[in-house]
Amino acid sequence: MDEPVLLTGAGGHVGRTVLNGLREEYDWRLMFHSQPAHEPEFPYWTGEVENHADVRPAMEDVNAVIHLAGDPRPDAPWESVLSNNIDGTHTVYECAVEAGVDKMVFASSNHAVGAAETDERTPEMYRAHDDFRLEGDEFPRPGNRYGISKATGEVIGRFFHDEYDISVCNIRIGNLNEDHPPIDYERGQAMWLSPRDCAQIHARALEADYDFEIVYGISDNDRKYYSLERAREVLGYDPQDNSAEWDGAERIDGTAEAVNVD
Amino acid sequence: MDEPVLLTGAGGHVGRTVLNGLREEYDWRLMFHSQPAHEPEFPYWTGEVENHADVRPAMEDVNAVIHLAGDPRPDAPWESVLSNNIDGTHTVYECAVEAGVDKMVFASSNHAVGAAETDERTPEMYRAHDDFRLEGDEFPRPGNRYGISKATGEVIGRFFHDEYDISVCNIRIGNLNEDHPPIDYERGQAMWLSPRDCAQIHARALEADYDFEIVYGISDNDRKYYSLERAREVLGYDPQDNSAEWDGAERIDGTAEAVNVD
Repeated sequence: MDEPVLLTGAGGHVGRTVLNGLREEYDWRLMFHSQPAHEPEFPYWTGEVENHADVRPAMEDVNAVIHLAGDPRPDAPWESVLSNNIDGTHTVYECAVEAGVDKMVFASSNHAVGAAETDERTPEMYRAHDDFRLEGDEFPRPGNRYGISKATGEVIGRFFHDEYDISVCNIRIGNLNEDHPPIDYERGQAMWLSPRDCAQIHARALEADYDFEIVYGISDNDRKYYSLERAREVLGYDPQDNSAEWDGAERIDGTAEAVNVD
Repeated sequence: MDEPVLLTGAGGHVGRTVLNGLREEYDWRLMFHSQPAHEPEFPYWTGEVENHADVRPAMEDVNAVIHLAGDPRPDAPWESVLSNNIDGTHTVYECAVEAGVDKMVFASSNHAVGAAETDERTPEMYRAHDDFRLEGDEFPRPGNRYGISKATGEVIGRFFHDEYDISVCNIRIGNLNEDHPPIDYERGQAMWLSPRDCAQIHARALEADYDFEIVYGISDNDRKYYSLERAREVLGYDPQDNSAEWDGAERIDGTAEAVNVD
């Protein structure tokens, strides 16, 4: 527990998972889009992430930011992702460098490379025997306008790193599913990210030293087409879960339960 | 001369150069930001490139688009490139696929990778003996917000190609300088694009067959850090000029003059 960490998009799915898993680990500052139903346990702000005046106060004295805020819908219309995700991410970076933040962890998405799942490669690429891997250093290949906005957020981060020397880790988050991996959905099983692995990769991204990174945020699934090499090597990410250890909603060995998000 | 080609940004520097070099070669449609001082020789439209209603009529019956419109200033503020360049390019693609356009040639920029010119690499990378090359398939590395917008334009093109099957060629244009290469400016000499090579690469991009390409638009300079391999191989680009053949504003062999843009 050192200097404060700001979590934007604290009310969203990934935000709740990160906070649930790392509640005791950091001195959190939270930013919500609108007033949360329950009073948060940590200092918090509400506002539009693309508005400098809404974001800037939340950055004061902050050492690192986990930026999750934005329109999370894969089918979000262009106007929304242009404003909430592209302009919003630019505003968050501008406020961060003004405030002297050292490190930005940006929630990118599998959708930034969704169109790499071509007709020729699928469904084979979703299967354990297939060795096709995306490493993360390729030119982006978004599968929808939401994916365009996430790839652009990565490019914005690349610029802010090079120009202002802020450390940037982009996590292309897979399929965060509570309780168990997606059922009867090969693609979702290949990119499953368990709640505890989600919390861990964000913690490692807050702790590790790096310049600019793009990593994949998935569990250590037998099925996978995202490489975990950079996340392991640079962040020290050590995923604990694997969608192959599940049969539908049940763990094959009957042991641990996936961690629920409250 | 087959079906009409729409040129957006027809009043800009690159637009005038392309039109000057290829006036007789295509059935041009022109789009300007505002009413040109002289009545154009071809059918034309004026308007904001981010406005669907302004762009859509100019696409009717068009087979290919050369999209150059946008804020061209390397130091343009974020708000301007967000609207004119990012939103504008998305609008142009939307109108193009609605109109059934087959091919998009997008004016990207050296600024999409400007931050690859690191302190460690410069000025050596600007010199003829240095063999550092950018190929074009790397993750973008913009040097300014204008560069962010151009890299994003490429990513938008990647999506529209994958989703709608429009052929896309992104030309990362170097330093277009009339009359002669930049003087006393190593970087500019390394990325010089002569007017006739500028016209040629756009013509080749209109003629060649490809899916999605990112190529560098420079002359065949002895000094260079952009690879010309993809442009030669996929487009058949055969650049005629080389900044090394110039001593300041004079050609070393005293022969040809660079083509002026009227």
